[in-house]
Amino acid sequence: MAEPHEFRIKCREQQFVDHTSNVCPGYVQANLIVLPQLIASDFHDLCLRNPVPCPLLATTIPGDPTKLNENNVLYDKDINIAKDIPKYNVYEAGKLISQTPDISDEWTKGHVGFLIGCSFSFENALSKAGLPPKNVTQGTCVSMYRTKRYLNPAGIFTDCTYVVSMRPYRPKDVEIVREITRKFKQYHGEPIAWGYDDAYNKLGIEDINKPDFGDPIPINEDEIPVFWACGVTPQAAVESLASKVEGKCMGHTPGHMLILDLKDEE
Amino acid sequence: MAEPHEFRIKCREQQFVDHTSNVCPGYVQANLIVLPQLIASDFHDLCLRNPVPCPLLATTIPGDPTKLNENNVLYDKDINIAKDIPKYNVYEAGKLISQTPDISDEWTKGHVGFLIGCSFSFENALSKAGLPPKNVTQGTCVSMYRTKRYLNPAGIFTDCTYVVSMRPYRPKDVEIVREITRKFKQYHGEPIAWGYDDAYNKLGIEDINKPDFGDPIPINEDEIPVFWACGVTPQAAVESLASKVEGKCMGHTPGHMLILDLKDEE
Repeated sequence: MAEPHEFRIKCREQQFVDHTSNVCPGYVQANLIVLPQLIASDFHDLCLRNPVPCPLLATTIPGDPTKLNENNVLYDKDINIAKDIPKYNVYEAGKLISQTPDISDEWTKGHVGFLIGCSFSFENALSKAGLPPKNVTQGTCVSMYRTKRYLNPAGIFTDCTYVVSMRPYRPKDVEIVREITRKFKQYHGEPIAWGYDDAYNKLGIEDINKPDFGDPIPINEDEIPVFWACGVTPQAAVESLASKVEGKCMGHTPGHMLILDLKDEE
Repeated sequence: MAEPHEFRIKCREQQFVDHTSNVCPGYVQANLIVLPQLIASDFHDLCLRNPVPCPLLATTIPGDPTKLNENNVLYDKDINIAKDIPKYNVYEAGKLISQTPDISDEWTKGHVGFLIGCSFSFENALSKAGLPPKNVTQGTCVSMYRTKRYLNPAGIFTDCTYVVSMRPYRPKDVEIVREITRKFKQYHGEPIAWGYDDAYNKLGIEDINKPDFGDPIPINEDEIPVFWACGVTPQAAVESLASKVEGKCMGHTPGHMLILDLKDEE
């Protein structure tokens, strides 16, 4: 499997445009959201007030996707956040208008990028413990759902809801799965809900067989769905802004992450 | 009005056993929760995963209510967290068993105390801006409600819900009230919900006229309820543990806070 730098160059050259579940195992992965500077401070607050769905890892210098502030996650100097992800979503007035492997043209002087922790980062630890997520063993993208659970509002972000990722496990394995993922505090940590009752009552998911992002994952009769907060949450937040903000917003395409230079054990 | 140290001594000597809304204006206030050491690490995680209802200010050394770790909030060396609050709640198996001005006898070698930010800390700033909370002008205790909004779980704390405080404001003042309180990041920050729709739909409050803690506050026809996350949340969490934990848990009596030496402008 390619090392992170090599893999990012492959993305930059558009030779890899697929999801990144199980890519570069052992390295952590990140979500991206790119926002007009006018709302960057509100979004920063949103992250601090909601560290479970929005664990902030690093921000770019305004207008420059090749330079990060307080960067502990990418050791390489040759980075370009506008190209090094397999695929991006572009939003205008809260609507998804295109998916593309390169957002250099959209990234203006007034845009700031935020890197947010991703739950793919703990999948290797689960596999090592003999509890590989089914999306890993089946080579599919994890299932992701919009929920009705609200974030704590921050500035312009007032009606945002959690997005969650789902991995099926047997009820008897839930406690060990919680324990393993708890340590990944910058990568959503332990699950926020588990079981069908939680899915419907705590999260308001209507149909577990129809994820809003990623691939459907079959849940066996002896399994229950286990839900983690998901870094697609900021993109749902951008959608909820609708026309309250001028200019485009960008993000990674769900499941298609930035591979970092940091190991999941660190 | 008494300075914090003087006021705390009054509490220690049981000369003041009332709520602390508008006591020592300009100084920040704190909630207290005291837990058996066995679940202290889980509770610490709960705070980090839910910094809006549970903004952690400081912890005591295990077994000693007179010494704090990383203490930036109490400058005075002569402190006793088991006595310096006007009134305490004592819980056993998740049930409130007594209210007392002194918990020295309950505080065993195996207990750890946590100080949590309190929204009384921003009331002075609201008053200075010409928007005094009604509980301040009427000299009553703020209204507090249990809600159906879930915390992000952490270890043993799996089914906890937010407690909120409520202050009525006119809809036209909500944005400025949000802006003023946003800066108090360690003291719950900006409101988490406002208006009657939010009260019922987002928070699941059934009867706004019947707060679960504090005094009822009349809401005029030209006002709406504005809700902040509340530091009574940890006590609701302790109740939800029920008999999962052995030993007593303690907290301040809602509204009856610890006055800190830190000014609200700091």
